[in-house]
Amino acid sequence: MSKANKKKIINDPVHGFIRINHSICFDLMEHPYFQRLRRISQLGLTFLVYPGATHTRFHHAIGAMHLMSTAIDVIRQKGHEITHKESEAVSIAILLHDIGHGPYSHTLEKDIVTNWDHETLSLLYMEKLNKEFNGKLSLAIEIFKNEYHKKFLHQLVSSQLDMDRLDYLRRDSFFTGVSEGVIGSERIIKMLNVMDDQLVVEVKGIYSIEKFLIARRLMYWQVYLHKTVLAAEKMLETCLQRAKDLIKQNIKLEASDALLWFLKNENNSNSDEVLQRFSLLDDSDVMASIKSWTKHSDKILSHLAAGLMNRRLFRVYLQKEAFEASEIDDVKNRVMQYFNLSENDLKYFVFSESIVNTTYSDMNEKINILRRGELTDIAEASDMLSPAALSHDVIKYYICYPKEIEKTLI
Amino acid sequence: MSKANKKKIINDPVHGFIRINHSICFDLMEHPYFQRLRRISQLGLTFLVYPGATHTRFHHAIGAMHLMSTAIDVIRQKGHEITHKESEAVSIAILLHDIGHGPYSHTLEKDIVTNWDHETLSLLYMEKLNKEFNGKLSLAIEIFKNEYHKKFLHQLVSSQLDMDRLDYLRRDSFFTGVSEGVIGSERIIKMLNVMDDQLVVEVKGIYSIEKFLIARRLMYWQVYLHKTVLAAEKMLETCLQRAKDLIKQNIKLEASDALLWFLKNENNSNSDEVLQRFSLLDDSDVMASIKSWTKHSDKILSHLAAGLMNRRLFRVYLQKEAFEASEIDDVKNRVMQYFNLSENDLKYFVFSESIVNTTYSDMNEKINILRRGELTDIAEASDMLSPAALSHDVIKYYICYPKEIEKTLI
Amino acid sequence: MSKANKKKIINDPVHGFIRINHSICFDLMEHPYFQRLRRISQLGLTFLVYPGATHTRFHHAIGAMHLMSTAIDVIRQKGHEITHKESEAVSIAILLHDIGHGPYSHTLEKDIVTNWDHETLSLLYMEKLNKEFNGKLSLAIEIFKNEYHKKFLHQLVSSQLDMDRLDYLRRDSFFTGVSEGVIGSERIIKMLNVMDDQLVVEVKGIYSIEKFLIARRLMYWQVYLHKTVLAAEKMLETCLQRAKDLIKQNIKLEASDALLWFLKNENNSNSDEVLQRFSLLDDSDVMASIKSWTKHSDKILSHLAAGLMNRRLFRVYLQKEAFEASEIDDVKNRVMQYFNLSENDLKYFVFSESIVNTTYSDMNEKINILRRGELTDIAEASDMLSPAALSHDVIKYYICYPKEIEKTLI
Amino acid sequence: MSKANKKKIINDPVHGFIRINHSICFDLMEHPYFQRLRRISQLGLTFLVYPGATHTRFHHAIGAMHLMSTAIDVIRQKGHEITHKESEAVSIAILLHDIGHGPYSHTLEKDIVTNWDHETLSLLYMEKLNKEFNGKLSLAIEIFKNEYHKKFLHQLVSSQLDMDRLDYLRRDSFFTGVSEGVIGSERIIKMLNVMDDQLVVEVKGIYSIEKFLIARRLMYWQVYLHKTVLAAEKMLETCLQRAKDLIKQNIKLEASDALLWFLKNENNSNSDEVLQRFSLLDDSDVMASIKSWTKHSDKILSHLAAGLMNRRLFRVYLQKEAFEASEIDDVKNRVMQYFNLSENDLKYFVFSESIVNTTYSDMNEKINILRRGELTDIAEASDMLSPAALSHDVIKYYICYPKEIEKTLI
Repeated sequence: MSKANKKKIINDPVHGFIRINHSICFDLMEHPYFQRLRRISQLGLTFLVYPGATHTRFHHAIGAMHLMSTAIDVIRQKGHEITHKESEAVSIAILLHDIGHGPYSHTLEKDIVTNWDHETLSLLYMEKLNKEFNGKLSLAIEIFKNEYHKKFLHQLVSSQLDMDRLDYLRRDSFFTGVSEGVIGSERIIKMLNVMDDQLVVEVKGIYSIEKFLIARRLMYWQVYLHKTVLAAEKMLETCLQRAKDLIKQNIKLEASDALLWFLKNENNSNSDEVLQRFSLLDDSDVMASIKSWTKHSDKILSHLAAGLMNRRLFRVYLQKEAFEASEIDDVKNRVMQYFNLSENDLKYFVFSESIVNTTYSDMNEKINILRRGELTDIAEASDMLSPAALSHDVIKYYICYPKEIEKTLI
Repeated sequence: MSKANKKKIINDPVHGFIRINHSICFDLMEHPYFQRLRRISQLGLTFLVYPGATHTRFHHAIGAMHLMSTAIDVIRQKGHEITHKESEAVSIAILLHDIGHGPYSHTLEKDIVTNWDHETLSLLYMEKLNKEFNGKLSLAIEIFKNEYHKKFLHQLVSSQLDMDRLDYLRRDSFFTGVSEGVIGSERIIKMLNVMDDQLVVEVKGIYSIEKFLIARRLMYWQVYLHKTVLAAEKMLETCLQRAKDLIKQNIKLEASDALLWFLKNENNSNSDEVLQRFSLLDDSDVMASIKSWTKHSDKILSHLAAGLMNRRLFRVYLQKEAFEASEIDDVKNRVMQYFNLSENDLKYFVFSESIVNTTYSDMNEKINILRRGELTDIAEASDMLSPAALSHDVIKYYICYPKEIEKTLI
Repeated sequence: MSKANKKKIINDPVHGFIRINHSICFDLMEHPYFQRLRRISQLGLTFLVYPGATHTRFHHAIGAMHLMSTAIDVIRQKGHEITHKESEAVSIAILLHDIGHGPYSHTLEKDIVTNWDHETLSLLYMEKLNKEFNGKLSLAIEIFKNEYHKKFLHQLVSSQLDMDRLDYLRRDSFFTGVSEGVIGSERIIKMLNVMDDQLVVEVKGIYSIEKFLIARRLMYWQVYLHKTVLAAEKMLETCLQRAKDLIKQNIKLEASDALLWFLKNENNSNSDEVLQRFSLLDDSDVMASIKSWTKHSDKILSHLAAGLMNRRLFRVYLQKEAFEASEIDDVKNRVMQYFNLSENDLKYFVFSESIVNTTYSDMNEKINILRRGELTDIAEASDMLSPAALSHDVIKYYICYPKEIEKTLI
Repeated sequence: MSKANKKKIINDPVHGFIRINHSICFDLMEHPYFQRLRRISQLGLTFLVYPGATHTRFHHAIGAMHLMSTAIDVIRQKGHEITHKESEAVSIAILLHDIGHGPYSHTLEKDIVTNWDHETLSLLYMEKLNKEFNGKLSLAIEIFKNEYHKKFLHQLVSSQLDMDRLDYLRRDSFFTGVSEGVIGSERIIKMLNVMDDQLVVEVKGIYSIEKFLIARRLMYWQVYLHKTVLAAEKMLETCLQRAKDLIKQNIKLEASDALLWFLKNENNSNSDEVLQRFSLLDDSDVMASIKSWTKHSDKILSHLAAGLMNRRLFRVYLQKEAFEASEIDDVKNRVMQYFNLSENDLKYFVFSESIVNTTYSDMNEKINILRRGELTDIAEASDMLSPAALSHDVIKYYICYPKEIEKTLI
């Protein structure tokens, strides 16, 4: 690979031209582990509601790396040292932060595909790559694990205002078309500074931060927790669970080799084989397999699979109060009758749980506003977003079941 | 499905809110044939160069339908009658114009997957749907085939300025991030009018048309004929050809049932079974199958498959003059040696052909400019785009082969 | 004026092409009263902070008329009748709603130029025009005064979600470049509906409304109440007050005839002459006059004038608590000494007052959200914007004085 | 002025946040000579056709300075040295390149207001400022005059792809709303490089350059040479000429002192007084004076003035062939009769001349494309823009006269 090629430019509809500043980043991007992210969509099944949301984790990772290089420039211009080595390391860390994501990992991570969450897997892959790259990722890993002495570098990778979030909120609103969720990533980054080894926001940026918090909340309700997406995700999770259950009963299923291995091998412990096999798994395995299940003889499996393929999604009701037991029972009874199910199989067709949107209250770290040399938390500095409003979780309850039974209502 | 639901709004990052005006359009969109388009990407392998280009034919079809409803409003406002029935029919025609596209059909249609081109397949599916919908698509089909007496309605579906093109150029530039290709679809549509049953552009719109022609040409060179995309497409085509050749030799291949049937059954003639099977085929079949071939024992197949999966694409050189035979022979010799291939297998690894960009010269129909009641062709009306420039085809020649052999150069 | 011309299209960088639907609107736009608005800037002295903010009331009025025609289409599509005559009248009403604005009227209306506020003047001009146009504006005036029986038409002209506001917030954020203030006017309009003769918002639009309220608040703090703009406005007001005071003392001033008449004639009661003279007054009179005063022998006048011309603006401090009397006295003493002023003249150089930002609490009318046939106020319907937060006024106190005295601080 | 203040950020709707990198630039911006540019509109009377076009030369100069700092970064990144001193100088040069513009200088420079063109005046002001700033502008002036040995620095200030043009084309299309004219300034700048001390464009940028040339041509026909703007400019020029002619006849006119001096003093030679007086002249003098002339007893003056104020503009016909003498004579006769004019006074009411649009042919310098280490001119490198098309001037002829006489046509 020639030097010239490594300085190549990527066209990003969100941020414009992206230049790759460190040649190791280019080499990592060429690695099959990273190329796999081209086949992992960023928002899973959200495209069933927002048809534009077909963007991938590959693209997001590169976008976040781009924002990182902007942030580094801004912080350096304000007089804080970031060495070349640190700049490279923090760029690697953000580039690889999501490398452990599997297909539909928001829905399928833990239990369904592997026992690990994606953060753990990301770290395992980074360590594997570190060996292949002769230790050149060591500092990146140190920063990723927050073990490096300059804490603000870790905050650029993971905190309330990390480059991950600044990229994905903007990217997700761009591709979904939910313009209410657009955030001014660039404006926020221009207001970043460092004080006492903390990433902080200059007071001039307070309005951008307020708008960022609002936009984030809107994205949660309009996109990430959208009730129809929720229904699709529950169906996907259950569909794969059903497939696993059938396999345990030795019922034959068509599926790609890559996926089949994971459906058969639970609680896998030999991490090296798992990592190798996992690196060959992507959205196409899940999609192609589900498609083939639409014609399976197991009615439960084929019903869920066909619903996902042809967008015949379950009905969801979302409300602020918990559903009463009698309501849920009524739905269950009607589903059992309509589909002629055993009570045990109801778990594949009726779901009733809750979701929470915690804009700001869940923060271990705060967003620090820098005014005349002193730090205040945004919840105090803002005229508009009272601490009460920000720390107030919103919980909603839902019930989700096949639409068919609505015909049975009197 | 309640009436209210049919009036639902779709969020499109390109055009904003899209309202579905005809309930039959909503019903068609719900049909599995149409839902399949969610899994057919609009630009095939272009995402390997422009990571944002993951948008689908589903989304494009809906966008084109939206532009159609805008165009209908504009033309009606200018005093030309379009009845409710005609409005519905022309909306159906544009919605379904691409329904016959298969996976990577730009690359794979004809020869590889089926014997038909996508236009033929689209018409076959429309006719099938017409039966299911009790003849409600008859007028749409008449317009699609240009057999309806109001010719301008067909031109809205298929002509130099049809809604198909006005949507896809804008959409493709949006998702690739190639901002030079952005066209002012809305501005052009506002300038549309009808004269002598022809779709025409009012003289005020001349600059928009000039820019449209330029932008279109740029999109061709920058996106549709991008040399790296070209390399990937040739590899994909060849990879599937190799798979078919191996099957003929009874060599076993992992592939989804859906794809396998087409690889095995060439020159299929029973259209009903083909249509049924084809309607179950999408990008995921191709992707998942190729991924599994990366580990196949046939070196040619696995080399091509792994190259596609991990983006190790062939080298392409593009130039205005044809390559000399001696140059091509030299490449072939080096490829044979390096990969230890028979002369017969060279066809999988070395490609040398030409591509043509014919901005305007290929037009059967012209773009008519309406000035003071008279029509002129844009090529004459424009101060800038001389007829000579517009009718001038650009042909380029390329040679494409594995990068590995470059190491063998002295 | 030919019919064709009246259908002409105006290019608006904010909304794109604007088509003028009613020929009387075109005729009104051609009237010198309306043409004068080309010379009245929308945001007064804000351009001293945001250099792009040079847009005019002319442009805003046309933009609001354009949004009105979109709103009419939307409401009609949802099954509510708006007759052609009503459509024309409400378009006229919004087109002329600001016709009574004078130069820098935000700053100069009442006391300085005339005794009337701009709403009163707008109505007076509408009535004058109604005579010229033979009563064709009668219905528009009825709607403007909220005397027409269909109340929702008045709400389109003046209410929490009127077309005035939906245009100016978006336009002002566009021209200032304060992207945090961008509102989705189009998205909000698509969600409008009418129930019980009230303008309401469908529940799907709730997030857009939340974002609208936040954006509006941000525009207040970042633009409309920006402290440097505040300083400039106080200087302008005081500069003209000083001019009037000098005239009372028979001191000669260069000024355009148009402005001079108003500086000399206070408490003018003969509305016809006032209206005639006022219609010849615009920003250029104020700017050219102030520029000539930069060389006036009166030190107070020339200091204020030169400060405005060369952007040597007073210092402002803004805080949440009232300034203590001792602080203010201290400033006053230093200003008196530095500029060698009498106590009486301090009023031209030191200002200490307060400003209030009342996002939503000041509403007589509410924003009604329509959910399943029932209306709720946004403050209750929103998960995010608690009633407390919305009804909470923010008051800030400021002190403003010449920067020169800061050199005198120890 | 504190250091912190000098690093302040300006909000630009076109380029986003603009940071002022050199404190001397900030000081120059504070100077009254530069502040005056706030009152000089960039596009003169174009706002009469495009209401958004109220942007100023102040804003443009800052935008061009911003693009300069981006260009410097790009060129440095590609390995070419630009010292801090050179960076500062070239920034000053672009910031001040238009400082000699007077009100409506496109129309009024030479003959009407002064004998000098704006380039000469800009240089005179730079030299005056250089004295005030103790020689700190010397290098900037050297670059501006192309006397510095690094020629590419001058090309950044003045050439086919200078920062002046890259800013104004984009800014003018932004504010007019003529979206066909939008150019990708940022994309072009990212493709800039230096070779043999020449500013060149890398081959990847060829499409952006093609689109730039097209967009520029569109801007000429749609905006800069728009026929209605042309009419307004001719009226303005003639109106001021009439005022000068009346003054020569000792007829009294109301006008600001600033303007009156220039109307009275032609062929002024004492540059110091001229520069001083000229620095007090801006759009408001012209506007306020013309407004007062609408009531002047001289019919010619008041007719022209009222036409400009109330947008009753002359009729213009534009065509590719010269008008025949008989046509022009016919118009003149009818104008003489209708307005009861002497033959001598016809020059105020009938204009017939030609305009030329020379996209690329007028270039002394070429746009050099860098491909594999060699330079080619864009006219040769482009597949689309043939040399013939680019070097082809378009000349159009117009006739312009009061609309009133059209009533007299049979």
